[in-house]
Amino acid sequence: MSSPDPSTHLQDAIDLAVENVKTGRGGPFAALVVQDGTVIAQGTNRVTTASDPTAHAEIVAIRQACDAQDDFRLDGCTLHATCEPCPMCLGAIYWARLDQVYYAATREDAAAAGFDDDHIYEELCAPPPDRRVPMTQHLRDAAQRPFEAWLDYEDRVEY
Amino acid sequence: MSSPDPSTHLQDAIDLAVENVKTGRGGPFAALVVQDGTVIAQGTNRVTTASDPTAHAEIVAIRQACDAQDDFRLDGCTLHATCEPCPMCLGAIYWARLDQVYYAATREDAAAAGFDDDHIYEELCAPPPDRRVPMTQHLRDAAQRPFEAWLDYEDRVEY
Repeated sequence: MSSPDPSTHLQDAIDLAVENVKTGRGGPFAALVVQDGTVIAQGTNRVTTASDPTAHAEIVAIRQACDAQDDFRLDGCTLHATCEPCPMCLGAIYWARLDQVYYAATREDAAAAGFDDDHIYEELCAPPPDRRVPMTQHLRDAAQRPFEAWLDYEDRVEY
Repeated sequence: MSSPDPSTHLQDAIDLAVENVKTGRGGPFAALVVQDGTVIAQGTNRVTTASDPTAHAEIVAIRQACDAQDDFRLDGCTLHATCEPCPMCLGAIYWARLDQVYYAATREDAAAAGFDDDHIYEELCAPPPDRRVPMTQHLRDAAQRPFEAWLDYEDRVEY
């Protein structure tokens, strides 16, 4: 169910993001996961203090919400983020099966403050050979073995 | 520096992925982070057992490598993944500043085994209003506050 008033949660996230910066915990971003109007998790950017390039606010909040629910799915939940999610976080949003995303600042606002993830969107949407990070493919035949093991494994938990 | 023989590391990753499935730890994926020919971290998919939708092999390996190096950057390292990374993992690869990616199975192979992330690539490359997960924007003015706090914060660590 969607939150009735996304602005209240977004305002809370904005306050959290300001606090995150002022206390030296990381970058100017925060995110909340909301279920039926209740905040079930909150995350702030911890990239530099956790030495973790994946510790974006949205990822931190999603991981915390899943941990609290003991579930890798967040169907029925919404994400409230201070800024438009980067491609990594957007991917996580899809994998977590969140229902809806509310965001405040745009990617252009982020770029103006020195956080340019527009180039990552461009890279992802480019064919692999045209990307800046070289990606090369080897051993395709051997790489079928894990998939065969998966399809043979009767107790597999699909996700 | 690139690894001299990516196939050796890819083969090791493939073996790890098979073991990950057979021991019930998660999906059929593994990844290694290599620096100067030495494996500094390895990850396997733990989505279902860790209740963490972000626990893809690549993310697990990147987080572990960063933790071991106490650094949020992996310049000079390469990633060896059993399968073409999904958009979330590709985003993480850019944020971690990895030099190069070697992969074995293609996204088509993954789709044939039930792991279809092609639709996430399509969603990311679509304009936000056209995406399946609704994304709406509010409070843009208020959302400048975290960025202002960031630019005012003299001890900020950029990333």
